[in-house]
Amino acid sequence: METKVERIQRDIETLAQYSQVQGIGCTRYTYTKEFAQARDYIVQEMKAAGLSVREDAVGTVIGRMEGKNPSAPIIMTGSHFDTVKTGGRFDGMAGVTAALETARTLHDEGFVPERPIEFVALPEEEGARFGGGLFASRAMCGKLYHNELETYKDSDGVSMAQAMREYGLDPARADEARREKGEIDMFLELHIEQGPVLENAGKDVGIVEAIVGIKCFNVYVHGRSDHAGTTPMDMRADTMVAAARAIVAGTDKARELGDGTVVTFGRVETQPGAFNIVAKETLFDIDCRSKSLESVDKVIDAVRASLEQSQAENKGLSFDIVEKLTAQPVLVKPEAQELLEQEAAQAGISTMKLLSGAGHDAMVMGSLCDVAMIFVPSKGGRSHVPEEWTDYEQLRKGAELLCRCVRRLASK
Amino acid sequence: METKVERIQRDIETLAQYSQVQGIGCTRYTYTKEFAQARDYIVQEMKAAGLSVREDAVGTVIGRMEGKNPSAPIIMTGSHFDTVKTGGRFDGMAGVTAALETARTLHDEGFVPERPIEFVALPEEEGARFGGGLFASRAMCGKLYHNELETYKDSDGVSMAQAMREYGLDPARADEARREKGEIDMFLELHIEQGPVLENAGKDVGIVEAIVGIKCFNVYVHGRSDHAGTTPMDMRADTMVAAARAIVAGTDKARELGDGTVVTFGRVETQPGAFNIVAKETLFDIDCRSKSLESVDKVIDAVRASLEQSQAENKGLSFDIVEKLTAQPVLVKPEAQELLEQEAAQAGISTMKLLSGAGHDAMVMGSLCDVAMIFVPSKGGRSHVPEEWTDYEQLRKGAELLCRCVRRLASK
Repeated sequence: METKVERIQRDIETLAQYSQVQGIGCTRYTYTKEFAQARDYIVQEMKAAGLSVREDAVGTVIGRMEGKNPSAPIIMTGSHFDTVKTGGRFDGMAGVTAALETARTLHDEGFVPERPIEFVALPEEEGARFGGGLFASRAMCGKLYHNELETYKDSDGVSMAQAMREYGLDPARADEARREKGEIDMFLELHIEQGPVLENAGKDVGIVEAIVGIKCFNVYVHGRSDHAGTTPMDMRADTMVAAARAIVAGTDKARELGDGTVVTFGRVETQPGAFNIVAKETLFDIDCRSKSLESVDKVIDAVRASLEQSQAENKGLSFDIVEKLTAQPVLVKPEAQELLEQEAAQAGISTMKLLSGAGHDAMVMGSLCDVAMIFVPSKGGRSHVPEEWTDYEQLRKGAELLCRCVRRLASK
Repeated sequence: METKVERIQRDIETLAQYSQVQGIGCTRYTYTKEFAQARDYIVQEMKAAGLSVREDAVGTVIGRMEGKNPSAPIIMTGSHFDTVKTGGRFDGMAGVTAALETARTLHDEGFVPERPIEFVALPEEEGARFGGGLFASRAMCGKLYHNELETYKDSDGVSMAQAMREYGLDPARADEARREKGEIDMFLELHIEQGPVLENAGKDVGIVEAIVGIKCFNVYVHGRSDHAGTTPMDMRADTMVAAARAIVAGTDKARELGDGTVVTFGRVETQPGAFNIVAKETLFDIDCRSKSLESVDKVIDAVRASLEQSQAENKGLSFDIVEKLTAQPVLVKPEAQELLEQEAAQAGISTMKLLSGAGHDAMVMGSLCDVAMIFVPSKGGRSHVPEEWTDYEQLRKGAELLCRCVRRLASK
């Protein structure tokens, strides 16, 4: 008979095979043939664990373990089973596998819950095929974007609606994926950390305190193309220098604030981009995240104040800061964190509290029900690359903690 | 009879017609049909001014006014007659026209110099066609690059050698353009300022104290592509932040030094260049110029020190600074500056001392003989664009100062 860690390894390795690109990580876009193959495997494993399995209106696989009280608010756990292009085998899959392993364990125990448990595998969290992202959880929360099924298309021009039909779903019925408030008691998601904190701290699992809030901006600095030799420093409107000062100011503010605040300036572009011409235009992006949006705003204020100072000191310099995205932070209730810590302590699993810096389906689900998240370590903090890795034994510990919590939550 | 300012206007407007691109500024690449047309006009004007005209081995047009002592070190004046792509009509032409006007004035006066005067119009200063630049002055100073006639090609793949043959020159004889040390006493070049200093100060002409020294570098900062959300600030190797700190440090150092020191970071590129991924690689260029290379080195040291500090503070961060170009500053002798100031004062022409931040043929000629430069104002400081402009009356004043100095220098 397979051990737990063998079952987990089989899940991960089997699902990793269903990839449009062979040999370089895993590429499994939503509603493709490979996606259907992965679904079939998940359905088969759920059925083997005694679950009654259905697909909701957008393709979320839902395996239900009925409770003594079938109408009590349910416990739901799972994650997504789509991937980014040439991504890893753990992002999403770790949580799907942990849910499957929990179902199998409870089934093997003959466990009969007080309230129903739903084990889920969600499509299109990454948005890698159609660009939307967090799609199935949004559908569950009644948060589909206006017309997104028609307007979001893949790189071949195939709309989500068309792809759904080819997959066997009726896009006209997508709204039926929606769940009512009160229907779900808690959504628990196990996910890889996608960062270096757990590995560096040598801890087995992370207990997520909050999924950070995010604001993203495009910043456009406008100035003048002057000759690099003939224009004195005090007569320039140098957009790159103004951008550099703003980037330093924003970075220093984020470091000073703490509170899990991070800021990233991943794209910087200068125009005309010649070594001997002062940059007339500089564009840079800001991605700022924190447990509190107040901290995010302080970082953006520091960037703005720096640019205002550059504008005051350099005639001809101006700027625009354009907001692209805001996501509120989602807090995990202290009781839920406490539950996770107690169960981990009883199982001898070491923990630490941390923030989720990335968005997850659990973030969206926070608008519908309580949420909790368990992180397992990511080797080298790497994710969205073929090298993404979590040791199977670490994943087993995370799955064990998930199972314990689900069992306890569903026992009352 | 034409006035001086009318003659100057005619020169500028006639030469501006000889352009490969019509309607958008002036585009006159070296050794083209339009270049030959401009040469023919210059030759005609020189002959009309009584000069004996020849072309040297690389196509520099040389009009000679013989001196009473034909073997005395000569006075040479002129500038280049090639342009950048869709450039203006004054860059180079201002100095060619001022030389023509000086020749015509001295001819009209019946002036017979003690020593020979050579009025020159040089090809390929910009390097816009073949990429070399300062070509004819380098040929005159024996500073051609190894094999450049064969290896430097235009965008159609035509080598300099091929273009020279089509233009009627023998590339095998290019070395014959070389002049011996002692043969030339002084090279005087009038040029547009290409910067905003004279216009802002409201002065007629600039007397150049020095042509700045230049160093250019490519800086490569290497780090790690981390997730914008999941990687705490103190665990990143963020190359863009390190670059921003270095750019600020270099800028502040240049401003602190004065001495005409300028530094430009015109091109900054991040990889992979996504808003939600910490930049793994950042490339930026440094163009630093100053009257003294010691000041340039201090700026580069400030950039390096900043990067070293980032490297010490961020595990996984490293950098390379690759030197691409060094040009020594060329100083104008105090006696020559004094001469220009005296003559300007006598003519009622207002002056100010300044640095040439751009390279010019005079910079190259500094290795062969004494040099002096006169700047005339550039409207809005703009150059290398169709809008490049100098009022004809301002150009006349500059030409008058040039004429006075040439007359005085050639009178002894």
